[in-house]
Amino acid sequence: MSTLSSSLHAELAALLGDGWRTDPSERLAYAYDNSRREALPDGVALPQTREQVIALVRACRAQRAPVIARGRGTNTTGAAVPVHGGVVVSFERMNRILAIRPGDRCAVVEPGVLNGELQAALKPHGLFWPPDPTSAGYSTVGGNLACNAGGPRAVKYGASRDNVLALTAVTGTGELIHCGTATTKGATGYDLQRLLVGSEGTLALIVEASLRLTPAPQARRALRAIYRDVASAAQAVARLMAQPVTPSMLEFMDAAAVRLARDVGGADLPLEAGALLMIEADGDVATLPSAIEALMRAADGPSTGSGQAHGLISLDDAADETAREKLWAARKALSPSLRTLAPGKINEDVVVPVSRIPHLVDGVQALSREFALPIVCFGHAGNGNLHVNLLYDPADAAQDARAHAAMARVFALTLSLGGTLSGEHGIGLAKREFMPQAIDAPTLALMRAVKSAFDPDGILNPGKLLPD
Amino acid sequence: MSTLSSSLHAELAALLGDGWRTDPSERLAYAYDNSRREALPDGVALPQTREQVIALVRACRAQRAPVIARGRGTNTTGAAVPVHGGVVVSFERMNRILAIRPGDRCAVVEPGVLNGELQAALKPHGLFWPPDPTSAGYSTVGGNLACNAGGPRAVKYGASRDNVLALTAVTGTGELIHCGTATTKGATGYDLQRLLVGSEGTLALIVEASLRLTPAPQARRALRAIYRDVASAAQAVARLMAQPVTPSMLEFMDAAAVRLARDVGGADLPLEAGALLMIEADGDVATLPSAIEALMRAADGPSTGSGQAHGLISLDDAADETAREKLWAARKALSPSLRTLAPGKINEDVVVPVSRIPHLVDGVQALSREFALPIVCFGHAGNGNLHVNLLYDPADAAQDARAHAAMARVFALTLSLGGTLSGEHGIGLAKREFMPQAIDAPTLALMRAVKSAFDPDGILNPGKLLPD
Repeated sequence: MSTLSSSLHAELAALLGDGWRTDPSERLAYAYDNSRREALPDGVALPQTREQVIALVRACRAQRAPVIARGRGTNTTGAAVPVHGGVVVSFERMNRILAIRPGDRCAVVEPGVLNGELQAALKPHGLFWPPDPTSAGYSTVGGNLACNAGGPRAVKYGASRDNVLALTAVTGTGELIHCGTATTKGATGYDLQRLLVGSEGTLALIVEASLRLTPAPQARRALRAIYRDVASAAQAVARLMAQPVTPSMLEFMDAAAVRLARDVGGADLPLEAGALLMIEADGDVATLPSAIEALMRAADGPSTGSGQAHGLISLDDAADETAREKLWAARKALSPSLRTLAPGKINEDVVVPVSRIPHLVDGVQALSREFALPIVCFGHAGNGNLHVNLLYDPADAAQDARAHAAMARVFALTLSLGGTLSGEHGIGLAKREFMPQAIDAPTLALMRAVKSAFDPDGILNPGKLLPD
Repeated sequence: MSTLSSSLHAELAALLGDGWRTDPSERLAYAYDNSRREALPDGVALPQTREQVIALVRACRAQRAPVIARGRGTNTTGAAVPVHGGVVVSFERMNRILAIRPGDRCAVVEPGVLNGELQAALKPHGLFWPPDPTSAGYSTVGGNLACNAGGPRAVKYGASRDNVLALTAVTGTGELIHCGTATTKGATGYDLQRLLVGSEGTLALIVEASLRLTPAPQARRALRAIYRDVASAAQAVARLMAQPVTPSMLEFMDAAAVRLARDVGGADLPLEAGALLMIEADGDVATLPSAIEALMRAADGPSTGSGQAHGLISLDDAADETAREKLWAARKALSPSLRTLAPGKINEDVVVPVSRIPHLVDGVQALSREFALPIVCFGHAGNGNLHVNLLYDPADAAQDARAHAAMARVFALTLSLGGTLSGEHGIGLAKREFMPQAIDAPTLALMRAVKSAFDPDGILNPGKLLPD
């Protein structure tokens, strides 16, 4: 744990005024994120301008003090926890929407703008920014970009990386860089802006973002498809993704998730349900019915009318918003219900090619039996991005050991299926030790060399993303 | 100009067998690309395996010999011209489609597969790979990726960078790296695969690509909108891009282009036409009519029925494929017609925010008058990516000097409008000298540091993309 020198304290206090906080109780508020990990920073900076960010990085670099960028700390991997102390830079005061240009499908924002605030400001223009993590109401655009946040809509509209045009950022040497252009096409040099997205504050601190916007659909409509087993649901996912109408959401629940939603959450689901898909389409009012028809055909399968051959038990179409809410109830009942199974939960968001979903789910259930711990899978099937929730009692040392051993096996299974460690949560502290399994040594060495190009002294968010 | 040592010659001959060519007439075939620039390589390698690529890069590195990756040489910037001699690595023998996985929306290919071959192989699966440069029939996937090739469809489906999942590549140290995963979502470490796209062979040689596929639309339909002036057309472009139905193509022609297509190309266009838009929608048969209606409304403007208020002269809807071909005739007549204006042409593909198109076109016409040279603008309006064609006689020294001076001013104008040097052609040799105007010094320095991380000895395609 580093301790800042008194000269650095004085320098940052002079630079930031009341935007420099060292009181232990205030520092505590910036010590943790949603990973349940915690480490006290030596100071908290609340800059208001990019010039302050540049000056503070230079001051910290001179003394090799760690600099940890922070949005609102909603990430689940420990990426915002200052494990080596140093200065947490919270962007809560750099929270202006600088421009909305509808004809250019572009918004320019400071990093501290909340995702939800941005969406509200875009609404009158008939536009939205696609990333929709569960935390959207209280997570920042800067944090979304740092973690490459996704969400259910990513299946149609992409994740954060797919929805950024240009970034202005401060590197580990305190240089201001301009990456990309606020145009939807570009072939001028190296694509540094998409490299910064998902780099978890280890390469640079984003001080301004030009975001790619999408016209908001007029309407949406949901389907709920219940299948006899996971294999049938997974085949339906592959059919849904191989036809031209891309669903705006395509969410999966395995048998354990269905059981939980029914028995604990009180959702109205048949006993023989082995898997469930929530399928949503969006578009304009005129075309939505035919889009829904196409999705229903794909969900049912290329049969002569009887869905039974493809394991479909029921297919419900929510004709209006009330019916839609009712269909989504099963999915929403899920997360609270998980807590009834065990006090502790490890939620990992592995991703596999869509065709491998059945292998992943079957393999995970085998691990659940082997390690005698419940595992519930659900998530963004259209991207093959499943949230694997392992339930256990952290106070029970044996269960705790089994849980972590099982998770290591889940990662190994995922990698063997051609998938990777994280679809949208990122690496942070939580999955860092697994990186050498996911990424071979020459590629990891190259990532380290890229890190050195941006941050030669290793002051930006040390101890995250790349293994030691 | 380097000359390879006899030991390196012998090593590469032993490694590659008849895939190592040193005969001058054979080398000449690999000396040029579509930029009209030319420089003879010292040898040409036609590897068949990634192991050969690794071994040849290591052998060349040991002697600091340049290594220049090559697809089919269709690029227009000189990016494939071996200006420092060395070894051209042509991927024409690594041209296998390794896998097509429709449920995963993924194809795995070697770099030498032609774009057109891939599209033909995907067709039976109802899928396509979006990049559609004019050269698609005879350019390679590897070359498309190296240059971040786009095309008219990019407005809806993105360019090459937006349609790649994972890349296997050989760095300048001869290390094999695996970037990304063949999944449509990922947050596992740094995004090196999108960094490689558009890097013009200066960072690594791509030996395998996992491509993101899109379901092919069932049908398409075109509109032709003729406007009184560029401002009216540009406002229509902004309206078209701000509503939910994204056109699958949105091509622009300025007054000079319209005149040329009419007077030289024989296209049926009114005398008062000041600008033209070709607008196309694709989708399924059921929804296409309402998509076309939405685009017609946006092309016409939010009036009470009379398009006159928005400068619209005529709006033609091609009901079938024959009518569509007829509407596209004006656009297709254009490129051949350009040759009638002057023997020489500089075609640059600058890009600006969509809202700045009128400023760009007006500014370009002012430069045309100032330098007394015809300039014709047309291109991909939905992305703000205009091809600025300057016509001149290269044999006339005064015209040649004026042409290059005018182009420098076009770049300065583009940058002043928040745009950038290239939307899809790239930098290569042609725009390298303008990079310091487009990209500030700290960002360029960082690009150089990234280059050094991949290629510490600078053997990969030296003299390209980054200025000296």
